Amino acid sequence: MLENAIKHARANESRHLAALQDFIRIPSISTNPDHRPDMQHAASWAAEQIQSLGAPTVEIFAEPASHPVVYADWPSPDPLAPTILVYGHYDVQPVDPLDEWESEPFTAQQRGEFLYGRGASDMKGQIIALFAALEAAAKHAAPAVNFKFLLEGQEEIGSRQLNDFIQRHCHQLACDISLNVDAGMLGPSMPSITYGLRGLVDFELQLRGPNRDLHSGLFGGIVHNPAQALCEVIAGMHTSQGQVLLPGFYDTVRPLMEEERRELARLPRDDRYYLEGSGAPQLWGEPEFTALEREGTRPTLEVNGILSGFTGEGMKTVLPARAMAKISARLVPDQDPLEVHNQLEAYLRVNVPPTMQWQLVRFSANPAVLTDRSSTGVRAMREALEEVWRVRPVFTRGGGSIPVVGLIQQELGAESILTGFNLPGDNIHSPNERLHLPTWRKGIEALIRFFFKFGEAGN
Amino acid sequence: MLENAIKHARANESRHLAALQDFIRIPSISTNPDHRPDMQHAASWAAEQIQSLGAPTVEIFAEPASHPVVYADWPSPDPLAPTILVYGHYDVQPVDPLDEWESEPFTAQQRGEFLYGRGASDMKGQIIALFAALEAAAKHAAPAVNFKFLLEGQEEIGSRQLNDFIQRHCHQLACDISLNVDAGMLGPSMPSITYGLRGLVDFELQLRGPNRDLHSGLFGGIVHNPAQALCEVIAGMHTSQGQVLLPGFYDTVRPLMEEERRELARLPRDDRYYLEGSGAPQLWGEPEFTALEREGTRPTLEVNGILSGFTGEGMKTVLPARAMAKISARLVPDQDPLEVHNQLEAYLRVNVPPTMQWQLVRFSANPAVLTDRSSTGVRAMREALEEVWRVRPVFTRGGGSIPVVGLIQQELGAESILTGFNLPGDNIHSPNERLHLPTWRKGIEALIRFFFKFGEAGN
Repeated sequence: MLENAIKHARANESRHLAALQDFIRIPSISTNPDHRPDMQHAASWAAEQIQSLGAPTVEIFAEPASHPVVYADWPSPDPLAPTILVYGHYDVQPVDPLDEWESEPFTAQQRGEFLYGRGASDMKGQIIALFAALEAAAKHAAPAVNFKFLLEGQEEIGSRQLNDFIQRHCHQLACDISLNVDAGMLGPSMPSITYGLRGLVDFELQLRGPNRDLHSGLFGGIVHNPAQALCEVIAGMHTSQGQVLLPGFYDTVRPLMEEERRELARLPRDDRYYLEGSGAPQLWGEPEFTALEREGTRPTLEVNGILSGFTGEGMKTVLPARAMAKISARLVPDQDPLEVHNQLEAYLRVNVPPTMQWQLVRFSANPAVLTDRSSTGVRAMREALEEVWRVRPVFTRGGGSIPVVGLIQQELGAESILTGFNLPGDNIHSPNERLHLPTWRKGIEALIRFFFKFGEAGN
Repeated sequence: MLENAIKHARANESRHLAALQDFIRIPSISTNPDHRPDMQHAASWAAEQIQSLGAPTVEIFAEPASHPVVYADWPSPDPLAPTILVYGHYDVQPVDPLDEWESEPFTAQQRGEFLYGRGASDMKGQIIALFAALEAAAKHAAPAVNFKFLLEGQEEIGSRQLNDFIQRHCHQLACDISLNVDAGMLGPSMPSITYGLRGLVDFELQLRGPNRDLHSGLFGGIVHNPAQALCEVIAGMHTSQGQVLLPGFYDTVRPLMEEERRELARLPRDDRYYLEGSGAPQLWGEPEFTALEREGTRPTLEVNGILSGFTGEGMKTVLPARAMAKISARLVPDQDPLEVHNQLEAYLRVNVPPTMQWQLVRFSANPAVLTDRSSTGVRAMREALEEVWRVRPVFTRGGGSIPVVGLIQQELGAESILTGFNLPGDNIHSPNERLHLPTWRKGIEALIRFFFKFGEAGN
């Protein structure tokens, strides 16, 4: 049955590729209000695809405050079948700078082994791989799994309204586990399962000194300058080597185990990888950890923006009344975002000079996620990947934060299986985004195998 | 004759006030290229006013690299008459933050004893006071003085191209003394003559780390953040008490003499004055000097603006590629602005970390000035002010910088009489700039008296 399903997928490859090209041709850029009609179009296109797979219930929720959510429910006749929530996002990043693209971003041009286009890899290609695998599995003895679908259109803008949607629809979305193929792999011969993601807590800090902008000739050297005070406060938050100086910041950080360290050291992500990826003159950060260890397993405190005084062309010799910083912390287990909020406040109470009044506003607060590497779902995925690539998949921890993973854990009580079939060189979020088709084909096969394995294991 | 001139001015007050409102309504913001047409408009408006006073020669020099210069020559029939160069600037500061203005900055609204608007006090009101006094004096037996006019449109951006203009026109501009009423007074009952001004040198500092904005989850803690690096660099420029840490910054600073110190101590400018004037929670700065001493006689290094990363509403977890600061130094005798530029570069060479590339661009560079307190012109002004206010004027050193004073001293060999009729609470350079009309009226009378006295003394 499994073999027949795999054969079916192979036989229908060119049709799936054509569907992917159609999907890419819808310029569903979520951050740009001009593309609202394209967002609607992409959502209904995806909903039709799910319907054509055989799902009896497919709904599009309009979500006026954001972009439509596509939901589908495809129950198994087997009353004991486990439920898997298939997650995806149909929105894509903007395409600028357009002149750096070698082919138009929404034409989905195939060149050699690659399909080029915005969203090819992140994550329309991944979604089509899911559809292709589900079609094949359903045609050739459906696995005993209840499928639910959650396709959002706001991942590239932070999934801000998704929490609300998941809360409102928590009964519909109830599941045993979620499958998220947006996490990529570390190399074409290195199938990967991401078992950890950092959390995020973010803030705006406002300092206020004088009650209005002052003439720097009349008050300079007499009144403390909020821009300077902000710089002093921010400068004191790190050692020169990059350790964070908030009181107690590392107290609850789960130490990196020697075994995990050895495992990470085997991954092909040396300093050169990060230097080339950033274009920075040299790397920086806690010297007792490798760059890869810092990315996945160490918390950070980052200044995402600063603003004070006159910043236009030329000069204005003002002593500004206010200064502002956007600050965020990436968190690892077992840091509590609210505790980090307290630590930042404690730091500010001690370190903001008495010449300044200050205010700290928090935006979001999501803890880090670590999923159980030995759950039924993860084991099924590990075996499926190994059977296709004929190597053991690597387990990795990502430095980013995928809010939906935390939301699903928190609101639905379900962990996510995080994997995917995009590669480090796929230029996601950059010009010339592409999808490596041989890897994509392997991904389809791995997903078919996973569905069968998970259905068997779940019963 | 003098009395008639003063009566004439009083009788025409409402016409002068209307002229000032017209002048304020021209938004002549010199730093913003969008306002180029307004700069032209303001220059020709002022030129017409001078022409209507009776000056036979009025010229507008286009100055393509900057803003127009208005020049006028109004000789006395008396061959022995001394020549006075009347200086003014018709440009104004930007108006942001706009939402803190209680009335639109360019509507020139009168509320009670005050006229509100950008430029009301700095220095369109002062220019109209000059025009009103000259009109009155000329109508009622002109004083035996040759008048020349130099109105620039680049004072608020450092008078960068004015040096070149003064050099090219040094014969036309030749004079015995210059009158500059841009220096204000210390209080409504305290007519003031400023005999010292600080110099100014100003810069933009750019830091660049990675070659593009990065995802803070993927590169935070691995690549040094330029916003943070900028804060570290700026924080290191001062001690916590406010001493500037550029190497050699204080080496050539002329020490404050005991006599001057005693004189300054008599002025009613205690800490409370600066606290109330700024609204700051407490004062700050070199503890071995009083606030007033710091304003007039100590150099400063100031951050006038900082910008990096995302500064809009909400949050974007970016690790920015660049960070920028506007930095300026107020200079005292005998600091050399170019030497301070070298000191800042030396500081940056040592203190910008190797994770960053940096660039420092200098805007203007003007040394401090000290003028002779016992010249004929200063004596005439002292008497004129005393006759109107019935108190001895105070002699003070200003914390601000008026580049033209140094240029006129250097290129034309003429000192400036520095006074003016704006008050500490006039919010110059800030929202809600205003002009105290009773003081302005006294100023017109004092100028009439000065013109007559100076004509008599000069003969």
